[in-house]
Order: sequence, then structure tokens, then C-alpha cells
Amino acid sequence: MLGSKNGVHPRARGGGGVARSLPEHPSRGYGQPVDLDSLINVADFERVAAERLEAGALGYFAGGAGEERTLRDNVAAWERWRLRPRVLVDVSEVSTRTELLGAAVSMPIGVAPVAFQRLVDPDGEVAMARAAAEAGTVFTLSTIATARPSEVAAGAPDGRRWFQLYCFRDHAITRSLMDEAIDSGFEAIVVTVDAPRAGRRERDFRTGFQVPADVTVPSLDAALGGDRSVTVQDVFAQIDLTLSWADLDDLASECSVPVLVKGIQTHEDATLAIKHGAAGVVVSNHGGRQLDGVDATADLLPEIAEAVDGRGAVFVDGGIRRGTDVVIALALGADGALVGRPALWGLAVAGQAGAERVLGLLRSELELALTLCG
Amino acid sequence: MLGSKNGVHPRARGGGGVARSLPEHPSRGYGQPVDLDSLINVADFERVAAERLEAGALGYFAGGAGEERTLRDNVAAWERWRLRPRVLVDVSEVSTRTELLGAAVSMPIGVAPVAFQRLVDPDGEVAMARAAAEAGTVFTLSTIATARPSEVAAGAPDGRRWFQLYCFRDHAITRSLMDEAIDSGFEAIVVTVDAPRAGRRERDFRTGFQVPADVTVPSLDAALGGDRSVTVQDVFAQIDLTLSWADLDDLASECSVPVLVKGIQTHEDATLAIKHGAAGVVVSNHGGRQLDGVDATADLLPEIAEAVDGRGAVFVDGGIRRGTDVVIALALGADGALVGRPALWGLAVAGQAGAERVLGLLRSELELALTLCG
Amino acid sequence: MLGSKNGVHPRARGGGGVARSLPEHPSRGYGQPVDLDSLINVADFERVAAERLEAGALGYFAGGAGEERTLRDNVAAWERWRLRPRVLVDVSEVSTRTELLGAAVSMPIGVAPVAFQRLVDPDGEVAMARAAAEAGTVFTLSTIATARPSEVAAGAPDGRRWFQLYCFRDHAITRSLMDEAIDSGFEAIVVTVDAPRAGRRERDFRTGFQVPADVTVPSLDAALGGDRSVTVQDVFAQIDLTLSWADLDDLASECSVPVLVKGIQTHEDATLAIKHGAAGVVVSNHGGRQLDGVDATADLLPEIAEAVDGRGAVFVDGGIRRGTDVVIALALGADGALVGRPALWGLAVAGQAGAERVLGLLRSELELALTLCG
Amino acid sequence: MLGSKNGVHPRARGGGGVARSLPEHPSRGYGQPVDLDSLINVADFERVAAERLEAGALGYFAGGAGEERTLRDNVAAWERWRLRPRVLVDVSEVSTRTELLGAAVSMPIGVAPVAFQRLVDPDGEVAMARAAAEAGTVFTLSTIATARPSEVAAGAPDGRRWFQLYCFRDHAITRSLMDEAIDSGFEAIVVTVDAPRAGRRERDFRTGFQVPADVTVPSLDAALGGDRSVTVQDVFAQIDLTLSWADLDDLASECSVPVLVKGIQTHEDATLAIKHGAAGVVVSNHGGRQLDGVDATADLLPEIAEAVDGRGAVFVDGGIRRGTDVVIALALGADGALVGRPALWGLAVAGQAGAERVLGLLRSELELALTLCG
Repeated sequence: MLGSKNGVHPRARGGGGVARSLPEHPSRGYGQPVDLDSLINVADFERVAAERLEAGALGYFAGGAGEERTLRDNVAAWERWRLRPRVLVDVSEVSTRTELLGAAVSMPIGVAPVAFQRLVDPDGEVAMARAAAEAGTVFTLSTIATARPSEVAAGAPDGRRWFQLYCFRDHAITRSLMDEAIDSGFEAIVVTVDAPRAGRRERDFRTGFQVPADVTVPSLDAALGGDRSVTVQDVFAQIDLTLSWADLDDLASECSVPVLVKGIQTHEDATLAIKHGAAGVVVSNHGGRQLDGVDATADLLPEIAEAVDGRGAVFVDGGIRRGTDVVIALALGADGALVGRPALWGLAVAGQAGAERVLGLLRSELELALTLCG
Repeated sequence: MLGSKNGVHPRARGGGGVARSLPEHPSRGYGQPVDLDSLINVADFERVAAERLEAGALGYFAGGAGEERTLRDNVAAWERWRLRPRVLVDVSEVSTRTELLGAAVSMPIGVAPVAFQRLVDPDGEVAMARAAAEAGTVFTLSTIATARPSEVAAGAPDGRRWFQLYCFRDHAITRSLMDEAIDSGFEAIVVTVDAPRAGRRERDFRTGFQVPADVTVPSLDAALGGDRSVTVQDVFAQIDLTLSWADLDDLASECSVPVLVKGIQTHEDATLAIKHGAAGVVVSNHGGRQLDGVDATADLLPEIAEAVDGRGAVFVDGGIRRGTDVVIALALGADGALVGRPALWGLAVAGQAGAERVLGLLRSELELALTLCG
Repeated sequence: MLGSKNGVHPRARGGGGVARSLPEHPSRGYGQPVDLDSLINVADFERVAAERLEAGALGYFAGGAGEERTLRDNVAAWERWRLRPRVLVDVSEVSTRTELLGAAVSMPIGVAPVAFQRLVDPDGEVAMARAAAEAGTVFTLSTIATARPSEVAAGAPDGRRWFQLYCFRDHAITRSLMDEAIDSGFEAIVVTVDAPRAGRRERDFRTGFQVPADVTVPSLDAALGGDRSVTVQDVFAQIDLTLSWADLDDLASECSVPVLVKGIQTHEDATLAIKHGAAGVVVSNHGGRQLDGVDATADLLPEIAEAVDGRGAVFVDGGIRRGTDVVIALALGADGALVGRPALWGLAVAGQAGAERVLGLLRSELELALTLCG
Repeated sequence: MLGSKNGVHPRARGGGGVARSLPEHPSRGYGQPVDLDSLINVADFERVAAERLEAGALGYFAGGAGEERTLRDNVAAWERWRLRPRVLVDVSEVSTRTELLGAAVSMPIGVAPVAFQRLVDPDGEVAMARAAAEAGTVFTLSTIATARPSEVAAGAPDGRRWFQLYCFRDHAITRSLMDEAIDSGFEAIVVTVDAPRAGRRERDFRTGFQVPADVTVPSLDAALGGDRSVTVQDVFAQIDLTLSWADLDDLASECSVPVLVKGIQTHEDATLAIKHGAAGVVVSNHGGRQLDGVDATADLLPEIAEAVDGRGAVFVDGGIRRGTDVVIALALGADGALVGRPALWGLAVAGQAGAERVLGLLRSELELALTLCG
């Protein structure tokens, strides 16, 4: 798969997509094809994406809360762990294939939910879902995506899909989106619990970031009416601040697919999540975007995996930039890792092909690391 | 409150104040209005204040002792602690309101004593007291303020006020100031015990810092006579070097308001302070200005809170730059935090409105952090 | 020996060698004589070599895997240990002479296997073997050397020689090379077990590194046919991925010389190596070139030396840049250290004389450190 | 004393001294008077001295062995300790006066032995001895000084003096120097034991440092004959490599003044030193100039003070740059600290007055730190 579509940028294909909503940025070569083979790791994609995106979108996707200490520490924490390779083990049959929530995937790396993906690519979440499907792994659609669940399902019918849920004050909107997702074949609900309010994302304050009116966010259209620009504050004004564990009980018992709780940062809450019906947890600090000064997810994973103790699945996101990071996550007790920004940089650089290339690089790095670890 | 007076600088209002005593610095835009909404955290205010102040005043307020290791470590130490957010807790009713020494305040963040405030704003301590009153919290007046206690009381009659006390060799001056403060409705005496002599503040040596003769410092006028410039050495030449715990006993028993002891850096001294009649302690290293190489206050707080063990109030200052720092201070056993430089940068940037904006930002950050911590 | 041939570069001698295979780089003074006396430590040689080598070769020899964290940590880890010098001990008779695998050498520092040495010097491995012989220590020839074992033996007949073995899928090639080495007087087989596949050496991806067709690599000629350029991937495509401990048993029992296992990174594998017939182990992470994120060898040495517990020899490579590093290695339980890059930088700077100078500097530093440690 | 002679440089006084031996360096203002009041800490003196000295002398005095890790760590290690100030203690009578080896001094800070001081000032060791005498503390004369013991005694008759001893292969020279020192009123012998050979001081290799022929080094004249330049290697070629603890027994029993052993880096050797007749030890790594990679002296002091346990005096040198460092040394069990480079930078900047200013600054910082520590 590596490099199979390199050099061919989806925007260069002409036709299709929602190109009107994509901010123009010609002076930076925005929209110019890139030689994907020359980008050999996630950092390369991050660098090129940063050159291509306009300041507001870049700040929104790259930024974190406060001083961005947790944002940086998420990456650094994986590096604090060391691998212990074993030798003289037959490694002629190494494979990254596994199952996530009972479904076969090509690797224990899925795509995390990221909002507003049509800000970086005209096909947005649909292109990302296709990339995940091609890469043989799970795609998670955000509640505040720029595509409806049904549109993603139609665009990437063969892929595995999960739906990330924000519980809005208006429960009818939430329920309607969730039903549409489940009806469209989404196989799990990932309810985010670490974001009753928006974190202090100072890059957005400085750029005055908002989603322009011509980029449609179906869930917010329902809540706010369409044809208006949207800020991050607008989004979080919709969130139900009264949510509690009892609501998780209700959700889990009413929902026909497994429910994962995303944003768990303590072993106490991991235990509560399992007790209140979750099929598993996602160890996450929202990519360092909510509360600056919390632990890196790599530092939290061991205590949470120990608390869950096999009674549910444990996923982790935040700071995963290398296949070796995933080896560490698995060794610390995770069933799989989710990547948000890496896949998004791929999408921003070269649409579906870019996201595929990133997922392929991570799978390739993971396979090599498993081989070299014996 | 946030941004309620943005763009309106007190100096631009014309009239009033003690403008004659304010050093002119036109090449740096000194006195030009600033868009307060564009300053979104304490670091922004620090940067703009540094551009506006002349070198001597900047060095005095920003500097620390020796190599300034403790100055820097005060800030860094808060960052060494990590928050552990809990989720799925109803956070629709989060409030920062609390009591400090039994008095209701809007938040557990007060204004620490800072000397010579008319060096950065024509209304000096009066403007700062008004800002604190507007922000709903406590203002602490320094013994070596550029306004008398009665003047501050008249200027900000509705605010809560504490009086910081240096014990001069001439006890009559000290007694007179303290009496004036208590008569003017100051609700506590904060006796500073870490400064029998001035720390080695090398920035002041290099700039030749002195308070010009036309800036009046009432306490020093009493000790030295007025109409003369004053150095930091002049101030500390007044301090009574023989002060001991017995004097605290006397002070506490004679004083009609609670006495806090400021400058406690060991659990042994915290225990002694309570034993000798203090209503509480302020864990402080004088903002890193006295002895370089001492511990950061965040590192000292736990042992001191444990030693006091509820028998008195515990406040902390030094390095507080974010609302999350205050969450940590409370978690480590403090009843509240005091901020000196942050409020002063606000005052230097835009007078009362600037100080209010800084206090508002801290309160807002604190409220968000409490919400996200569950 | 120090400086005995300084200023005389082998390439300047005219005649001889395989000069055709050496990439020309005149703009960097490639091939110009250098004053060896002016290069006083390994870092000096590294710097000059980096100026002289073309980008592809430099990247290949200097680079590591992934983020190169292990590459850097290999060096840093020796610095984390501290020496404890004893005084008033008679040091008039300090000597670095010792035995490695029972053979007398001038110092406990040998030359590690490094591939493709004719990329940096026309005489390549032959010159390096001569340098080691002059320095009185062991030279290790790589399986993917640019000289045959018999050629090295003929070129440096008096030196001690070991042969590093990669087990190819085509066992006949491996067997033939090993037999040639043993017949040519190589005194040990060093079987590398940490490289079933090539590590992710990103510098090579970026430079497009390959060994040009006119540089002969005898082992690869046998496997791939000659007269073609070779990439690192081509090399590793030859490796037998099924190798296991049983194969070590076979190798050790069939082999007429001692077998060392190179690439041991855990005490478990060290124990297994001894159990399966190894005469000793080389604690190595392949110079940080295989799996990024593994421990530095200095950090692994204690647990491995303890596991071997005198039942075999323990060597270490990786990050040795100073004689003091070797003192630490010995103190941590090693019988000796191997240096790869340091000797190669010497070869790149001034051929045999350069490599001799580097080995002499290390011996000299070691002797001084032993003297000063008492 | 502070600033008492500021602005008056001894070289500007005309007449006297050994001006011929001082290297000229006019382009850097060498020899120009400096305003001593503007230099407010040791770092200031180090900076100005570095501007004034020629490269060879600067490298010799400022440099350390190898990578200079121990050189840097000597300074950094004091900063790793934190002070714990006590408050409300009567500090009206703080004094730095104390005794060193039974003799009253103004402070527990003496001047460490430094060689070749006429390379930085025409009056060299005589000027330094005068500065120490004026500052009321001890001066230690090096064996390889540029002034005889008797010359120093004549030049600074009122000061306290110790003599540092290197044991030469030619014992007669050593004995003669020692006798001259004792006859001239030197009150202790400080025998250096960490330097059987010169450390690897790479700055000296690069500058080709040597002491020019017209700078007389009496001890080396005796060993090598005069009227020739001298390298560091020449010096150490004189050292007796066979020295052992038995020699210390002899020295201590034959010597009419106390013998200190300088260069102790382990508790084992501290115990041996006391056992073999030493009156005390100097915890020292020769200013980081002998073996790079050894512990900082601040890190070694506690174990050594504990081993000596009051049976002898404990001094420490290395990295002392602030009065607070001396407070830490005392708290860790030292009876006093010795400063080498700080005093030398003073001498290089402004002769005797410069060295006095440095010693005065250190005393002043120490007194303040003691006051603020309670």
C-alpha cells in the first residue's frame, strides 16, 4: 500500500468534492500536488500540512490548551518508555492484523474523531473514512463533523466506522444523530466526557478562528440553524453540563452497539465507566486541548489498563507519532491506539491518498518494530 | 467582567491622578491605549508591561535575587504538578466564590503587596485597590506603598483590604501606620518576616534604581523625611533586625484584626507562627527577591499546610500565572493564593482596567479548570 | 604511536588501493592531507569526516533509526555514570594491556564490524585491519565488507581478527564466508542477531543511499550477482528471518572458533546465549541503527554482565567516544569495548593512519583515566 | 571594603612589579583601568577577565579536562541544593568571622592554590596574597607559583598563608620548597594527591599553551633549569608517581605544621587520610581539570564530611561562585571553602584590588545569606 497513490492529489483530479468551502492559499502552494514518497514519517506530513493550511485552521487543529504543556508531553511521554527487543525468535510470520471491538482490522491503530475535516480537504470526513477503509482499519466520525453519518457511510461503505458523541443540551439532536449513525452501520458509540466546556485554546483566540458559514456542520445546523459561521464557543454552548454516570447507564442500556467512554484520565473513572455499562474506555486528554497540565496519556495508560483488567477494551490517543509508540501502548495494556492529527495532516497534504499514506507508514513502522522486538 | 472596559486606558481619561510622578517613555508608546481584549493571559500583560516600563522600574518589579533561580523556579514548580480530571460529574453549577479569613470573595485569589505602585500608574495602589474591589477580592497594601492606608480606603471604599507590615526600627512609625490601616477598615495585618535586609537584587544594582523624590512614600517620609529619592537599601535600613517570635506574640495580642505571617518557608516556622498567635501564614519567598536558591513556594506548600493542619489559614504567593496554578495550590492545602506581579503588569499596561482584566482572566481560568476537573 | 604518521595521508602516497571506487568530493577538500596532530579527540575526527564524506555515505555511517534517540542516548548514557578516583596509590606501572577471548591485546578496545568501508577509503577494511594490528588490538570484519576475509588476512597478517556473521537465507553463502574467515585465521565468529530486517534509517531514505556498482561486496555478489548497485534493503532481503536459538546451538557446535552473539539487549537473552553455546555476548543495539527507543547499551550492560556472571565474555559497543567511557564499561562488568564509528571516522579522515590515530587516542585516554583513578 | 579601591588599577600606579612578563593585549583594552563598582558578582569578573587574557592563559585557567562536564557540574551541583531560611530570629549580630585550622579569619572562604599567577598580573601571587590579607583570610601558594614562598611572605607579611605541595620525583626540591615555606611562616601544607599526571586539558592542546621563558617558576627552575618555556606536561613529568599513603605518614610526622590532603573524592580516602596523619582534607577534583566525569565536589562533600566526622578539618573547592554556595558547603559539613578561579579573575581584571573586590563580594553575599537564613 505504501506509496501506491503517491503524487496523485485528489484535488488535482478535477470535479467532485466541496471545493467551494476550502480556503484558498495559493502563495503557499496550497492545492499543488506533493510527492508523497518524499514524506517518510508523520513529522514530514505535519510540516507540509502546516505550510498549506491557513492560520485559523492550523491553529485549531495543531493547537492545545493553555501553555500547550500537555500537548507536548503527550508526544514526549511515549519517548520516556524504552523497548526491550528479544532476539533469535523466528520473525518470518509477523503480522499487525488484530481485532478492535471484535472486528478484524489490519492493525491496532484506528482514526480518532476530529471535527471540521472539510476545512482541510473538500471531501473531508468522507475522504478520511475512505482512507481508513483502504488501510483496513476503523474510522471515527465526530459529532461536529462536516459530513452526516449517512453521507460517510455512503462514501465509504466497506469501512468500519465508529461514531463520536457529544451530548447536547437538546437531547433530540443527539439522539437523532446517534440513530442515524447506528442505522448507517456505525459499529460503536464513542461518548466524549472530557469536554463539558471548551478548553482554553489560545491559538483560536489569537486567530479568531471560526468555521465559515459555507462549511456545513449538520449537528450544529440542527442546534443553531444553518448559514452562519460557528466558533468553538458556539459548539460547547450546546453541551449538556449536567451529564453524569447515570446518563451513561441509560445510554449503554438503550444503545444497540457498544459504547466507549472517551476522555478517561484516572483509574477511578475507568472503573466507574465499566461499572456503568461501557464496553471500554479511551484514555485521552482530548489531544491536550482541554485542560493544560494534566498527565500525558502514556503516563495514565498503565493505571487505567490495570483498573479495567480485561473487563472492557482500552484504547488510547494522544501523541502517537510512530509505530514504536503503538508497541509501547500495547505493552502498557491498550487494545489499540487512535490517531487524530497524524491522519489529519495526511488529509491536509493530499486528501484521501495522504491519509492513506500516513496510516500505511504507521502500519509499516509497527510491523518493523514488532519484528525487531521479536 | 472580562473585557468590560477594554480599550479605555485610565490615562486617556484626562484629569485626576498623580501623573507628574509617572516617568515618561514615549518612544515605547508609553501611555498609548492598548486593546485589552487582545491580551489573553498573564504572559501577554507581562510582555506589554515590559515594553512600557522604564528600565529601573521594570528591573525592580520583574527582578529577583542573585541568579534569579528561585524567581524562575517559582513559576516552573507549579508546572511540575499534574491535574487529575474527573468526568461525568454535573458541572452546571461551578463557582469560584469562597471566603478568605471569613470574608466572602469572588475567588480564592487575592492581590499580594507590591511596593511603589505609582511608578507604573498615576493612581498606583488606589487604582489597584479599586481593581481588586471590582473583581470582588482582597487587596493588600504594602508598608512602602505610594499611598497612605486612608487614601486607599477612601479611593476604594467597598473593597476588602489587608495591610502588609514591615516592622521599622522606629516602632512608632510602624504602630502609626498599622493603626491608620485598622482605623481605615483594613481587615488583616500581613507581617513580612523574610526581609530583615534586602536580597541581592542585581538588576537594581545595574540600573541604579531609585524612587524619584516626587513620588511620595508615606512610611519612608516619616522615617527619612520627604523630598528625597529613595533606594531599596534606604528602605531596608529601616527594618528592625532584632524581631523575634516574642514580638509576634505581642503584635498578635495587641492587634484587633487577624495577623498573617508572610515569608514562611519551613514547616517548623509555620508551626511556630501558629503557636505565637498568627491567624495564618503566607508561604512566600518574597517572589524570589530575597534569597536565591530557596525552594519554590509550590514545593514548600505541602509540608507547611500539613504543619498548620487547619489551625490557621494558609496562603501562598510566587509564580502563580494561571488559574490551573491556583487549582494546584488549593489541592496542596492552601486556602487561597496571592498574585503580585500579574496584577502589577495589568496596572502598568492599562491602570485599574488592566489590573481588573488580569484578575478576571485568572478567575475565568480558575472556573474553567474547576469545571474540567469535575 | 600517537602522531607517528601524522600529516601523511595514505591517498597521498600514490599508487595502490581501489581509488576508482572512492566518490570524488573535491570542493570539500576530499583527499587533501590533514594534520593528524591537530585532531585531539574522537569528536574532532567525526567533524572532519563529516566534512569529507558525501551525503549518502555520511548518512549511512552516522545515522540511526527513527528519531535517532537511541543513537544519541548511546553516547549520553556513558556520561550518566561517574568515576570515583582513589588517590595515593602507586601509579608508576599502569598498563592498558589485557586479553580478549584469551588473546593478548594492547587494550580492552577492539574495532567493531562496519560495512562498506571502501566507501570512505580506497583500502577500506584492509586499511582498518592494518590500523588495528598496528594498535595491537582486534579487528572485526563485517559480512557485508568490501573485502574478502582472505584479502584482509593477506593485507594485515599479524593482526588479530574476528568475523561478523549475518546468516543469509542461502546458507551456502554464509557457510562459505565463515569457512574462508576461519581458514584465514579469524579467531572468532560474531553472529549478529538484532537485524532480521533493516531498521528505519531515515537518512538513507532521504539521500537515496546505495553502494555503487563498482564497489564490490563479495557476500552480496554471491547472493545477488555482481556489477549492480546495492541498497540497504537489498542486504537485509538476504537475511534468514527464521533464525532461532537452535541455530545458535548448531553454529556453536560446528564452529572451530568461539562464537559471540552480538545484539543482546536483555539479561534473558544473555542467559539464553550462554546456554546455547555462545562464548560470550556483545551488548549492542547496532549503534542505534535498528530500533529507535531501545535502551542505551551503557544502561543494559549491568544487568547483562550480572546474568552472564563470568560464564562467557561480555563486550559492549555503542556510544564509546572517550577512554573514560571504557573505564566505565569495565567497571560495569564488560571484558572489553568495541568501537565502530570512531575508527571509521579515522579511516575516512586519513586512511590507516587516521584509524591508528583514533585507536591511539582512545588507548592514551584510557591509560590516563586508569592512572588518575588509582 | 567593597569598592574601596575601585577604579584604581595596580598597573596604572606606575613603577614596580614584574611588568615585563605580562603578555601585551592592547586591542582588548588590556591594562586599561576598569570601574570595579560596576562588577557586581563573580560572573562579571569572569567575563571581563576572559576579554583581557590572551587565549593560552585563558584556556589554561578557565579550562577543564575532556568534555569539561565536571568543570560545569562543579558549578551546577551547588545549585541543586536548596536553602531553608528560618524567620523571626534576631539577626542584628550576624558575622562571617570564624577560624580555619585554629586561626581567626574574616570568613570561611580562603584562596585556593592556582599556578602561574604572573601570567595574569605583574605582581602575581604576591598581589593575591596581599588581597587575601586585606580581606582577612587565608592565601594558599602553589608549588608551581611564579613567586617563592619567601617572596610572598615578604610581600604580604600580615596575611595567613598555606603552601600547596606537589611531591616531585626529586625529593630534595620538594623538601627545600616546603622548608622555605614553613620558615617563611606558612601555617599549613596542602599536599595535592589527585594529579600524578596532568588531566586531558584539551584547551591547552589547542592553544599550545606554555609559560614563556621570562616568567620564572622557582620550583621548575630547580627541576628543569631556568630560562626556558614550560608546558603543563613538563610540570607533571616532575611528579612522583609512586606516592602512597606511607609517604603521607612520613610527611605528616616530619612536618611542623598541619598537613591537609587535597584531592579527596571518596569517603574511603578521607578516612585513610585522617588515619595517615592528615589534619584535614580538601574535597576537590582539581577544578574539573584532572579527570572528566567525576562527581562534582558538592555531591561528594556529604559522604566525606560524614567519614571525617570531626576528626579533622574538611574544606571544599570547585564551583563556588556565590556566598550562598558557601552556606551550602557549611551546611553539608565543610569547615570552609576555597576559591581559585573567582579570585584569579579578580587578579586578572584589576590586580590586588580586583582580587580584594571578589573576596569582598563573596563575604558580603555570605553575610547576607546567613542573615536571611536566620
